[in-house]
Amino acid sequence: MTPEDIHSEIESMARRARTAALKLSQLESAEKNAILTAMAQGLRAATAEVLEANAMDLQAGEEKGLATSMLDRLRLDEARVEAIAAGIEQVVALPDPVGAVMETWSRPNGMNLEQVRVPIGTIGIIYESRPNVTSDAAVLCLKAGNATILRGGSEAIHSNRAIASALTAAGEAADMPPHAIQLVPFTDRESVSALCSMEKWLDVIIPRGGRGLIETVVSQARMPVIKHYDGICHTYVDAAADLGMATRIAVDAKTQKPGVCNAMETLLVHEAVAAEFLPAAAARLREKGVELRGCERTRGIIDCEAASDEDWETEYLDLILSIRVVESMDEAIDHINRHGSHHSECIVTADEAVAGRFLSAVDSACVFHNVSTRFADGEEFGFGAEIGISTEKLHARGPMGLRELTSYQYRVRGNGQTKG
Amino acid sequence: MTPEDIHSEIESMARRARTAALKLSQLESAEKNAILTAMAQGLRAATAEVLEANAMDLQAGEEKGLATSMLDRLRLDEARVEAIAAGIEQVVALPDPVGAVMETWSRPNGMNLEQVRVPIGTIGIIYESRPNVTSDAAVLCLKAGNATILRGGSEAIHSNRAIASALTAAGEAADMPPHAIQLVPFTDRESVSALCSMEKWLDVIIPRGGRGLIETVVSQARMPVIKHYDGICHTYVDAAADLGMATRIAVDAKTQKPGVCNAMETLLVHEAVAAEFLPAAAARLREKGVELRGCERTRGIIDCEAASDEDWETEYLDLILSIRVVESMDEAIDHINRHGSHHSECIVTADEAVAGRFLSAVDSACVFHNVSTRFADGEEFGFGAEIGISTEKLHARGPMGLRELTSYQYRVRGNGQTKG
Repeated sequence: MTPEDIHSEIESMARRARTAALKLSQLESAEKNAILTAMAQGLRAATAEVLEANAMDLQAGEEKGLATSMLDRLRLDEARVEAIAAGIEQVVALPDPVGAVMETWSRPNGMNLEQVRVPIGTIGIIYESRPNVTSDAAVLCLKAGNATILRGGSEAIHSNRAIASALTAAGEAADMPPHAIQLVPFTDRESVSALCSMEKWLDVIIPRGGRGLIETVVSQARMPVIKHYDGICHTYVDAAADLGMATRIAVDAKTQKPGVCNAMETLLVHEAVAAEFLPAAAARLREKGVELRGCERTRGIIDCEAASDEDWETEYLDLILSIRVVESMDEAIDHINRHGSHHSECIVTADEAVAGRFLSAVDSACVFHNVSTRFADGEEFGFGAEIGISTEKLHARGPMGLRELTSYQYRVRGNGQTKG
Repeated sequence: MTPEDIHSEIESMARRARTAALKLSQLESAEKNAILTAMAQGLRAATAEVLEANAMDLQAGEEKGLATSMLDRLRLDEARVEAIAAGIEQVVALPDPVGAVMETWSRPNGMNLEQVRVPIGTIGIIYESRPNVTSDAAVLCLKAGNATILRGGSEAIHSNRAIASALTAAGEAADMPPHAIQLVPFTDRESVSALCSMEKWLDVIIPRGGRGLIETVVSQARMPVIKHYDGICHTYVDAAADLGMATRIAVDAKTQKPGVCNAMETLLVHEAVAAEFLPAAAARLREKGVELRGCERTRGIIDCEAASDEDWETEYLDLILSIRVVESMDEAIDHINRHGSHHSECIVTADEAVAGRFLSAVDSACVFHNVSTRFADGEEFGFGAEIGISTEKLHARGPMGLRELTSYQYRVRGNGQTKG
């Protein structure tokens, strides 16, 4: 296909998405839930087809020499397909955010105003190799009344097609508006650029994947983008910390699942407790296989490699930890605001007032007092499901659930009010 | 200055804005109000300097042959400076949105969560010829705890400099953090591009001006943009409308101030009442000097020019009105969603159920039942002041007050919760 053909096909898809979105916005919760329930059943019934398509992707991936970790992200089996279907049913059970009256008030001239949650409209999801995103993202968006255009990576194209076709066939049989969920049928790079230029038809793009993908979308998109960049998360052990708790939290935040965005990358320790805390904490972290890199003062207390300036701004996603001793909480806050990624940070302290100051002064989406940063997560927050963790400050910040997939509208009622 | 010099100067300003924002975010309401009160007094005291600077802009504008309307937007006099200062005092009186707890809940593991309003951080305002924006925008942003970088148009550069220097001198004397308000001292186009590339330091850009400016910002900005495009607003006169009320609302929406974004541009009339409504309404509109352009069916009832396809998508901002007779409310809704700009629309009807359907099906920021669209305005909504009317669906939709200049943060408190 020529770039012009791709552009024109994407534009047709985007226009159809708008039409579908206007219909979706008028559905009752029960209608959306019936569609989603049918989708879960349809996906289960299509397990064989989905696994067959997935085998084609895996074979192609092996022939291309994809890394084992990539192949693992790509791989589906009966249990994983069942998990995707069960995920749809979990979304059915969540409350529908659409139609909620957020606020209501009246004005001296007698106008009554309501601010009401409505769907955003049309959402483009651009993602890489995990085929479960095809269902997870489309289903959450649909529950919030939005139409989606899904553009997955080439590695998973057969799996994505099989999943999308199972969902749409089952959905349409349950009266889903046509084109409410559309998968871009090709994976040329040009299709990303084309989606980024559809600001008339697409209300937002959510990229899910590596930095390269997000950079491309951010630089090209003419519509809002909700992105999820790095998680360079910190734990600060205060002078007034319970050091046993601090060790447990630090070990959890670093090692419980090191490859995720809410894992700790840097440990900051107040100088008043460093000599007591660091040897014990380092021993526990090393037991778990963590490589330590410290500032000069840290290295005066425990034996470890020197941390470079680069370490303070690195998301290791691995069993590596940088450690810095600070003179004060202000120095810790300054370090976090300067070097962090504004994602999630923790203070361990027994002093409530100190904790209050830290939580308010740290410019991050999620701030924790005596709780591991690993809880920065839509499920853990009680949102039921999440579409990602936004590092934006506008619209949605931090874990994004169904509510973050909505907009609002002002509805004003009167009896003939005129301005003149 | 070379483009590189401009880029480097803008980057220094943006870094300083971030530092200022972190300090502003920690100020109490009383501290911010003291700064703002000092600014109002400082601006009043600098009236002579501001008018002198304004005279230079006016003279340069006349020499350049600026249009009279442009010169009028540029012109300040004592009363206008006093109005700007009084505007600051109005903002002092508004409630501070920062620190409000939006929601609070706890989880089965004992974590307590709070969603708290916090400032956005750093805001770039790019605007054209109105020098009052220098104060209005900076002051609203500051009340919500944000640092601003202001980049005004070349026509108003002397006025903008005089206003900004009066505000910052008075503010800093009242302990405003340095660089909380910064005016870009030059007006080269490159400075807009440079601002658009400062996504690390600027959290959002708000362009205020014509389509050309907004297009430039939208295509270049790597950070979120809150924009305000056209207002192609509709009034739909339903079969069950009180026709006297419909005429009063239509005349108000079209003629009370035709040059603004919430004025009506297209009138849609249900066929059941068109023959009775249109002759009387047309007479009243023509009395006010309105030129009418109608569809075929309209022209079968009243004598007027034919509306072209282009008319349905034109923001006249003038005493011109396009009129279309529709067979049903669904046709009216479809016309609005297809041709409108998703800004503000009105239905006139005595039927509450019909009105409810219209309000929910129209995909616009503000929808009115028996109220003129001219009320789509932050002041009229009771927000106290507005920084603009967003045509975005994300973050802020419709009139934007102080609350829309904030973000939020999740604060989580526990007693040692770990995930492992």
